Amino acid sequence: MQRAPRRPGSRADDRVSEVDRQIISRLQVDGRRAYTQIAAELGMSEAAVRARANRLIADGTLQIVGVADPLKLGYDLMALIGLTCDPGRLPELADEVAGFPEALRVVVTTGTFDMLVEVVCEDREGLLAFLSQRLGALPGILNAQTFVYLRVTKQEYQWSAPG
Amino acid sequence: MQRAPRRPGSRADDRVSEVDRQIISRLQVDGRRAYTQIAAELGMSEAAVRARANRLIADGTLQIVGVADPLKLGYDLMALIGLTCDPGRLPELADEVAGFPEALRVVVTTGTFDMLVEVVCEDREGLLAFLSQRLGALPGILNAQTFVYLRVTKQEYQWSAPG
Amino acid sequence: MQRAPRRPGSRADDRVSEVDRQIISRLQVDGRRAYTQIAAELGMSEAAVRARANRLIADGTLQIVGVADPLKLGYDLMALIGLTCDPGRLPELADEVAGFPEALRVVVTTGTFDMLVEVVCEDREGLLAFLSQRLGALPGILNAQTFVYLRVTKQEYQWSAPG
Amino acid sequence: MQRAPRRPGSRADDRVSEVDRQIISRLQVDGRRAYTQIAAELGMSEAAVRARANRLIADGTLQIVGVADPLKLGYDLMALIGLTCDPGRLPELADEVAGFPEALRVVVTTGTFDMLVEVVCEDREGLLAFLSQRLGALPGILNAQTFVYLRVTKQEYQWSAPG
Amino acid sequence: MQRAPRRPGSRADDRVSEVDRQIISRLQVDGRRAYTQIAAELGMSEAAVRARANRLIADGTLQIVGVADPLKLGYDLMALIGLTCDPGRLPELADEVAGFPEALRVVVTTGTFDMLVEVVCEDREGLLAFLSQRLGALPGILNAQTFVYLRVTKQEYQWSAPG
Amino acid sequence: MQRAPRRPGSRADDRVSEVDRQIISRLQVDGRRAYTQIAAELGMSEAAVRARANRLIADGTLQIVGVADPLKLGYDLMALIGLTCDPGRLPELADEVAGFPEALRVVVTTGTFDMLVEVVCEDREGLLAFLSQRLGALPGILNAQTFVYLRVTKQEYQWSAPG
Amino acid sequence: MQRAPRRPGSRADDRVSEVDRQIISRLQVDGRRAYTQIAAELGMSEAAVRARANRLIADGTLQIVGVADPLKLGYDLMALIGLTCDPGRLPELADEVAGFPEALRVVVTTGTFDMLVEVVCEDREGLLAFLSQRLGALPGILNAQTFVYLRVTKQEYQWSAPG
Amino acid sequence: MQRAPRRPGSRADDRVSEVDRQIISRLQVDGRRAYTQIAAELGMSEAAVRARANRLIADGTLQIVGVADPLKLGYDLMALIGLTCDPGRLPELADEVAGFPEALRVVVTTGTFDMLVEVVCEDREGLLAFLSQRLGALPGILNAQTFVYLRVTKQEYQWSAPG
Repeated sequence: MQRAPRRPGSRADDRVSEVDRQIISRLQVDGRRAYTQIAAELGMSEAAVRARANRLIADGTLQIVGVADPLKLGYDLMALIGLTCDPGRLPELADEVAGFPEALRVVVTTGTFDMLVEVVCEDREGLLAFLSQRLGALPGILNAQTFVYLRVTKQEYQWSAPG
Repeated sequence: MQRAPRRPGSRADDRVSEVDRQIISRLQVDGRRAYTQIAAELGMSEAAVRARANRLIADGTLQIVGVADPLKLGYDLMALIGLTCDPGRLPELADEVAGFPEALRVVVTTGTFDMLVEVVCEDREGLLAFLSQRLGALPGILNAQTFVYLRVTKQEYQWSAPG
Repeated sequence: MQRAPRRPGSRADDRVSEVDRQIISRLQVDGRRAYTQIAAELGMSEAAVRARANRLIADGTLQIVGVADPLKLGYDLMALIGLTCDPGRLPELADEVAGFPEALRVVVTTGTFDMLVEVVCEDREGLLAFLSQRLGALPGILNAQTFVYLRVTKQEYQWSAPG
Repeated sequence: MQRAPRRPGSRADDRVSEVDRQIISRLQVDGRRAYTQIAAELGMSEAAVRARANRLIADGTLQIVGVADPLKLGYDLMALIGLTCDPGRLPELADEVAGFPEALRVVVTTGTFDMLVEVVCEDREGLLAFLSQRLGALPGILNAQTFVYLRVTKQEYQWSAPG
Repeated sequence: MQRAPRRPGSRADDRVSEVDRQIISRLQVDGRRAYTQIAAELGMSEAAVRARANRLIADGTLQIVGVADPLKLGYDLMALIGLTCDPGRLPELADEVAGFPEALRVVVTTGTFDMLVEVVCEDREGLLAFLSQRLGALPGILNAQTFVYLRVTKQEYQWSAPG
Repeated sequence: MQRAPRRPGSRADDRVSEVDRQIISRLQVDGRRAYTQIAAELGMSEAAVRARANRLIADGTLQIVGVADPLKLGYDLMALIGLTCDPGRLPELADEVAGFPEALRVVVTTGTFDMLVEVVCEDREGLLAFLSQRLGALPGILNAQTFVYLRVTKQEYQWSAPG
Repeated sequence: MQRAPRRPGSRADDRVSEVDRQIISRLQVDGRRAYTQIAAELGMSEAAVRARANRLIADGTLQIVGVADPLKLGYDLMALIGLTCDPGRLPELADEVAGFPEALRVVVTTGTFDMLVEVVCEDREGLLAFLSQRLGALPGILNAQTFVYLRVTKQEYQWSAPG
Repeated sequence: MQRAPRRPGSRADDRVSEVDRQIISRLQVDGRRAYTQIAAELGMSEAAVRARANRLIADGTLQIVGVADPLKLGYDLMALIGLTCDPGRLPELADEVAGFPEALRVVVTTGTFDMLVEVVCEDREGLLAFLSQRLGALPGILNAQTFVYLRVTKQEYQWSAPG
């Protein structure tokens, strides 16, 4: 199972050009940076930057969003919940859990857990309510193990795309 | 250990007003929504919206960022790595892991893992290199268990702040 | 998720004054210490000490209780039982387990166990009866893992409240 | 390994009489109940009740203590920490952990953990400090797994001694 | 939970005298040692030795048995199976498993397993048959984990009783 | 990996004849059954039975031993300890553990434990001493997990050899 | 449980001669090596080599097969899946899983998993489909844990048979 | 992380044509099938089939090998060993383990194990020797857990390549 060498013209390069990457990387730092400023930095017209950014947003390559800090909004408890599930219901369960407003992220994974759910709750009782009333109402969840966040050391949006 | 009732004037409410929450919630949907438009929706002046948004950004309550989809940029493998660590080095290790560009998120937690690290790699060999060359070079990591993402069902930025 | 600084006038300080803490700390050492003696030590009237102590007891901040050593009363086996439960029945199960006289403490937790139960039994057969007849009769308990106490090194009531 | 029948004159009965048990059981409910009242209830002299209570306290069968609710004193986070340890240092480690003021209880056990430690911390950062600075400084602790308390359903001192 | 000192006249000493222990210890080495020989060694009559041995056998303190080596009789695979069980059926399940001829020992335990079963099988297919046809037919067995014996380093019957 | 059919003249059959098995099976029930009685039952001479029994004992196929019940001799606590070990020291460690008088059985196994040790101790403190002073003194033991016996349902010596 | 010494004329030697082993070992390196060439190397006739090879193939001792590298055929994800199963359905489940084309190997094992399944999938979604639609449709699978292959370091067919 | 649609001209299709797949699939069933026969079946010349087969073998897409059944060659014990390793030595360890003749397969994986090793041993003592002398001599192996094969239900080489 030797890795095949990365050939020119491969998947990602086809769609996202080097200029696109430059635009993305500037917006990762500041999502409201003016297109005119980015255009100046890259030696392009503002219209070209806007067109490219809009295309990246339209095809889902890029989202520009406000990310709020739960703690500063009165949510005192963040946690990751690892679930083991009836495999036959796994994709449906992921959709059902994704429907709960407390769940920020829902990922289906390999390993000792089948699904990882990141939740934000107001406090301990809110987490207990999520476990017992939200998850507890879904058939096919076999086990739920909670990891309470003690400290978020890094929450990064600016990772650099490979050139 | 009965929960104390939430008293008026408590922590979060002091700093983030109802109007702030309205502004945040609109920017969660679209980080580039024009302040004039938000101002019109809330019946405020554009200057007041801008001032509040800037204050929320300045104090870290809100970030407006471009979030790129790793898969569309040529990164084919996302994973969560659960680490168990020498407790005496836990906070330092979190800082060291946070310094790796492949690590998007680093959280210190309770439970069977002491630290959770979300990584984005180009492929399987990239993940192996992260495990063996990045993590493998740090003293105090006792065990690393990797959960490969099969499907990201939800990645939410629009969770609504409680009124 | 930086921790907000502890602001003056926060939750606990509102209700439990420094003088209250002094009274509590003396009663933690000896629950029957005479109020006149405490009053003398703190430079207060006996009536004021009694009033404050009664208020702390009435609102549940303080209990003054006789704590008996199970071993000296003929109970030869103490253990902690970690339970994993059907999440949908978790709070009810905790109430049901709390109704068993062998259970001294019942706590709902995060982690590999959903509930921790401390039990005191007369001997091995008593523990087996608790597991099979008490817990075994409750629907929704998925797994029970028992930690037998070999030595209780510390059992503390005098931990000092922060000033 | 049939259980030998409980013979008359066995260990516990020798030292703690039925009258002692009656006294203990009344003090378990209220640690400050007047000895005169207990004496009246049991048809004994106040001096006899006091003498018996003092003897039970002197030999460690009974403690009368004020038990404060950590949450009401500003401690927001209780947890049980399960430790696996270098077996050769187990009893010493238990003594060392018992020396930390955050540790309310320290028990050496059989099972997947060698030691159970109940801690009370002011908040998440306090727990992280306990793990990394207190436990992290002790050689011989191999693994620490934390169970955060979501709800204390029962905390009992009144369990009844068998007649 | 300090250990009470071992008092003279305690349980075991009552029934099994020092002379009994001497007889037991000689029979542990050789179950067919002639009573006349033991009597000579202990300076007793043969009748007294026989009477004591018979009493120890009658009350279950001692068994004298032929122990055969499974491997030399054509059984090629020994294993310990750890079971987790529905707690409500635990004692009954132990009785049911004890009814299988392949099971040499059945013990109800605390810890990650609720029951330990030692089995002797002719080969791999015999073990698979035991797991799927014997254990698989019993309701209430939740999990079975098999430890195959690679080498029996010690199998002792001569442990010495404390004086 | 189909199982080869059991061929005539295979290993065990060579050495242990059907008559040997009949003798063994009678001694499994009662280790002191008179050879004259067995001889009568099998229609053989007493000398032939004795010669065969002696040969089986000499080549280790059969042991005739007194097996004492630990509980009736004042040992109150039996347990199985599962060890994980440095693989490079595994056989030596098994020999070292086998040297401890508290260890009745020592087996090297596959699975989550590398070694299983059955111990008999006088009480909880005896078990703690075995763990911390005996096992704790051996380099290469990585983890020790104890299963306390609650009830020994079966302890069999009479399993029947296949014909 | 001392190992009996390997006796001459034992099982395997009966059927597979030293010459057979020489033929096998040459075909392990190159399955299409001409029989004339092997015959020359071993000093035999081509007919004798062919006859022996055909007999080894006919009785299942040897297979000569083309082994394709999944990665080079467009399959991007290989994994081992460890299953825990209802013991009563274990052999049937193995047969059912063996019927899925994605499963290259199916083995019933002892240990924390009851069955190991090696799968080859086109990508992450293919693996998720195998887990949820293939395995998820089979009653009696209690848990499935996936190990994604990062690098296949060795895949050997040339292991040498012992002389 | 929506999956990008499989585009024409993607990786695998470039190199392995539909005709190649037909050739491979015939050789998976019988590695010695004559090229003339395959040529006839596919309507090609024998030279073309041979040239394509040789190219597939030369670039590692296909191996044609003799696969021997270990059991029929006197190897009585197959097992998978799951290893957890010092991450910094993981790739080197995989190479070192791959050097042992008992190891048929060595795979670096994600999940609770970092490496999976399939071994073939003559018997239990051979496995113990592999664990203690082979693996035990390598620094950086933290834990080894063995899964003994009870039955190999499927061992497939004929999986069909997707068209």
